[in-house]
Amino acid sequence: MVRSVELNEYEREWEELAATSAILRRAREVELSRAGLSVSQAGVLYFLKTSKVPLTPMKLSRLMHKQPHSVSGLVKRMETDGLVETRRDLKRKNWVRVSLTRKGEEAFKRQLTEWDVRNITACLSKSERESLIAAIRKLRARAIELLRQLRPTPYDELPV
Amino acid sequence: MVRSVELNEYEREWEELAATSAILRRAREVELSRAGLSVSQAGVLYFLKTSKVPLTPMKLSRLMHKQPHSVSGLVKRMETDGLVETRRDLKRKNWVRVSLTRKGEEAFKRQLTEWDVRNITACLSKSERESLIAAIRKLRARAIELLRQLRPTPYDELPV
Repeated sequence: MVRSVELNEYEREWEELAATSAILRRAREVELSRAGLSVSQAGVLYFLKTSKVPLTPMKLSRLMHKQPHSVSGLVKRMETDGLVETRRDLKRKNWVRVSLTRKGEEAFKRQLTEWDVRNITACLSKSERESLIAAIRKLRARAIELLRQLRPTPYDELPV
Repeated sequence: MVRSVELNEYEREWEELAATSAILRRAREVELSRAGLSVSQAGVLYFLKTSKVPLTPMKLSRLMHKQPHSVSGLVKRMETDGLVETRRDLKRKNWVRVSLTRKGEEAFKRQLTEWDVRNITACLSKSERESLIAAIRKLRARAIELLRQLRPTPYDELPV
């Protein structure tokens, strides 16, 4: 039953990309845990801190490229922890607006001091960084194109 | 309370890397869902299929750069689904050996036919791919070095 599995060159590259992304994420997780935060929590704090428009859980899920239901759960747990607060929008009653609390602001500042992994591209030369960023932008554009082909309609699944 | 958050060039690159990796993962998730599998399940099937040595949940967790407890849970759920089976090692009673079932073999073959995202680097030129892979290998090496600094001892946390 078992036969050898030959990966083509692209598939080997995919495995390298996936492994690298898992290791980078793990390293960032360990780094952030020193500030008492998870990667997802830090993501929510970052978007709330930098967004120029009010954010709903749905908008957050698009920015974070995550499923709406998992971001809703995350926001609820962060509210329980006192990092964010939610308020019904006055005009659109079914909209919930998420904002940072003072404790969330402090957590955001604390994680800024854990930055080795976050600055990891500093280990590359200027030209290596330029090629890397150019390549991942092409990959991202292609992935978005494939996502639209795979799931042509559901509005809540597509990255913005 | 709110002040502007200036990211440096490395941090902006980190955000691009993180966003790209989330989109690629999401695209692969959607692609794999057509074969009825999650990314993690496909990872387990892949390592079981290609490993030259017997795998325990602990070994799988190192290969997948995930926490041992989450891989144990994943393996248990896959056993319930009939994709893998576990057996106590005859010599080392506290070792559990994981292997593919016939249904797992079939699922592995089925996901091989969903390959657009998995072959995504085909959208790059040969030289773009070479620079990309060279850069991510350096990032991976640096991330492993940082992980060892951040967590110098716990043997079950380090990537192999």
